[in-house]
Amino acid sequence: MALAKKIVITDGVFLTLKEQCPVLEGSMIIEEDRIIYIGENPSPQDLEQADEIISGIGKLFMPGLVNTHGHAAMSLLRGYGDDLALQVWLEQKMWPMEAKFTSQDVYWATLLSIIEMMKSGTTAFVDMYDHMDLVAKAVEESGMRGCLTRGVIGLCPKEVQDQKLAEAARFARDWHGKADGRITTMMAPHAPYTCPPSYIEQFVQAAHDLDLPIHTHMSETLREVEANVKEYGLRPVEHLYKLGVFTRPALIAHGVHLTDEEIRLLSEHDVRVSHNPGSNLKLASGVARVPELIQAGVKVSLGTDGPASNNNLDMFEEMRLAALIHKAVSGDPVAVPATEALRMGTIIGAESIWLENIGKLEQGAKADFIALDIDQPHFLPKTDYVSHVVYSASAKDVTDVWVNGRQLVKSGKCLTLDEEKIKREFELCFERLVQ
Amino acid sequence: MALAKKIVITDGVFLTLKEQCPVLEGSMIIEEDRIIYIGENPSPQDLEQADEIISGIGKLFMPGLVNTHGHAAMSLLRGYGDDLALQVWLEQKMWPMEAKFTSQDVYWATLLSIIEMMKSGTTAFVDMYDHMDLVAKAVEESGMRGCLTRGVIGLCPKEVQDQKLAEAARFARDWHGKADGRITTMMAPHAPYTCPPSYIEQFVQAAHDLDLPIHTHMSETLREVEANVKEYGLRPVEHLYKLGVFTRPALIAHGVHLTDEEIRLLSEHDVRVSHNPGSNLKLASGVARVPELIQAGVKVSLGTDGPASNNNLDMFEEMRLAALIHKAVSGDPVAVPATEALRMGTIIGAESIWLENIGKLEQGAKADFIALDIDQPHFLPKTDYVSHVVYSASAKDVTDVWVNGRQLVKSGKCLTLDEEKIKREFELCFERLVQ
Repeated sequence: MALAKKIVITDGVFLTLKEQCPVLEGSMIIEEDRIIYIGENPSPQDLEQADEIISGIGKLFMPGLVNTHGHAAMSLLRGYGDDLALQVWLEQKMWPMEAKFTSQDVYWATLLSIIEMMKSGTTAFVDMYDHMDLVAKAVEESGMRGCLTRGVIGLCPKEVQDQKLAEAARFARDWHGKADGRITTMMAPHAPYTCPPSYIEQFVQAAHDLDLPIHTHMSETLREVEANVKEYGLRPVEHLYKLGVFTRPALIAHGVHLTDEEIRLLSEHDVRVSHNPGSNLKLASGVARVPELIQAGVKVSLGTDGPASNNNLDMFEEMRLAALIHKAVSGDPVAVPATEALRMGTIIGAESIWLENIGKLEQGAKADFIALDIDQPHFLPKTDYVSHVVYSASAKDVTDVWVNGRQLVKSGKCLTLDEEKIKREFELCFERLVQ
Repeated sequence: MALAKKIVITDGVFLTLKEQCPVLEGSMIIEEDRIIYIGENPSPQDLEQADEIISGIGKLFMPGLVNTHGHAAMSLLRGYGDDLALQVWLEQKMWPMEAKFTSQDVYWATLLSIIEMMKSGTTAFVDMYDHMDLVAKAVEESGMRGCLTRGVIGLCPKEVQDQKLAEAARFARDWHGKADGRITTMMAPHAPYTCPPSYIEQFVQAAHDLDLPIHTHMSETLREVEANVKEYGLRPVEHLYKLGVFTRPALIAHGVHLTDEEIRLLSEHDVRVSHNPGSNLKLASGVARVPELIQAGVKVSLGTDGPASNNNLDMFEEMRLAALIHKAVSGDPVAVPATEALRMGTIIGAESIWLENIGKLEQGAKADFIALDIDQPHFLPKTDYVSHVVYSASAKDVTDVWVNGRQLVKSGKCLTLDEEKIKREFELCFERLVQ
């Protein structure tokens, strides 16, 4: 799949995500992995020099979506035990099945999720799981960006803990910056309730040694918060703070149950929160205090969580949920307006995983962007495309996807992966697991 | 478009919605407007007698979705004033624009919404609006079912009130049972806060005279409830009860702010509630007490509300929201399980608008059903199709739609309406309105 040297898109509508000019009608030019021009339709001369000219008529172009928390391989468990409480679901349904996963299961299940994500406009995603070399291989092959981390549960003997930590560090070191820079890594103790304090401290030390951020689940359920207080005399935020987690740049998944004081503490450190509204609702975990977090200056991005607790990987749904639920819960109809939800799903997502110059359409930005078919009833009338994308669009409106200047999806078809083969292999994995 | 006399679908997966056998693999036979067989794949003889044989491989067949509250023509106001409070949005944005709507605007805007609804698997919908003859004409042409009602705002001089009531009654009488029975009607005073008490009583009398149900908005916002108490000394439920509204079969839209006592009163009368979660969230109206309503035996169905407050007409989203938000708000992860949400969107929806023998796939039921393309990553693995439909599917997974035995959508294309022409006319209407 050769890179097109110079791609010109003409006659399109562009959601730039820039404050001065959020919506622009005209043209965009991509050279190698960068946007080199965005503005009025170009001169005939520019068109002559193009390797590829794409008509943007009937299309909306916008930055790719960034999914900042998930476990892609859990697609193998989609629909396997719904309508249960988080702990029951984890302990009785998910973990016993996951214990049986082989590297090959993780590879094919991750590829299946990558296809779903790519085709629905996600261009970068965070993954916390096991068998991560195979996850990295899948990301490398797909052309997507991945911020990957071996998520470690430390409820095991010391020698197993040591082996897991070494493996997590080895993975993080081996893959950080690989695949033309599309893969980055983090260190991830799974959660305060699954890792003893001293083990979390070892992860903090490793993150310092490797100069990498930390990713962990935190304050997802009230039960977790109460258990943490019972066991350690501290709520999870202060617990992690005392263990040094916030001495590193950190990305926290969930953060549903936070006090004012905890929000202040997060805002005073380099801690970003991945808000997972679909998963939090489905598992009855609660509704995160997103307006307060944003108000305090915390970067809040969006994640789907794993496909077993969502149950799809449609980031348009997460943007819409983020824009909807906080209005009803707060009673404030301007809580998380459409523009904010769109930023959470794109540019703030990119910033939250330390991707620079990604998540906006402007000269010099990386060419990670998507096209939507807006020649459809639910995109009419042409009143407000930010509103339409957040309140009306969905995964399957996406027709084309580019990452790092390379087209990965064209007219709804994956260019980089063999979808039929992946679905077949995935089904074989599932059949073997349930036997 | 001739009716196929006998259609046989082979090798499909069927969500029957029957308790004993919710999912069935095999075949379904349709003759005229009815399902005459569902079960194992048929004999070669049955296939010989078929006018049309459809391969169901890779498809999931299920009852069509029933949208029990909306204002289809408000598609003209999609994205026109989002992120505002209900009263501000109504009084400053919606009503001034709606005052300019002509019959032709309503006709084309309703057709645009009908296309969106049909293509996303909705086979029957409730519409409360003005210029209803044109709405009925649009429904008649489309092949869908519509339960239609002239929604009347009574904040006007008595002679205008009289004229509107007469018009509403004339419409209801003229169209009830028309279009091969696909169109039914109701009497609809818009809301307790937009109709004086004596005017509501006149609607009750007219509903008795015509032997029709009543449809109205009720207890949508806290502000409405408080204003009702201030003006009439009663909350909306008791107010409408005293005006005789519940002496008729009634369909109430929203019912967000209800006390235990009010829920009991509704359950003791023939009152059904149309739950509109997307709209209630977006307008910050609150979260209806759906688990308590269901517990009390009230029929709770689902509606999108108008496209200006949703902003799409995707009933899969409403089913998902119904299954998700009540879990988080109640803290109960089994609140509104997937099966219940699916029933709310299909069979309970049909029952809520007095459609008999619709909303399930079984011998003798009316042939209102849809097909979804399940050969996609988000429908894998094949664990639980009820879960997949509620937690993972979306509008654009729908490929084919039948109503009353007639195919309206085939491979994603409308067979009965000219989509390109309707989009063009719709855009002309909008341009004229904003001039």
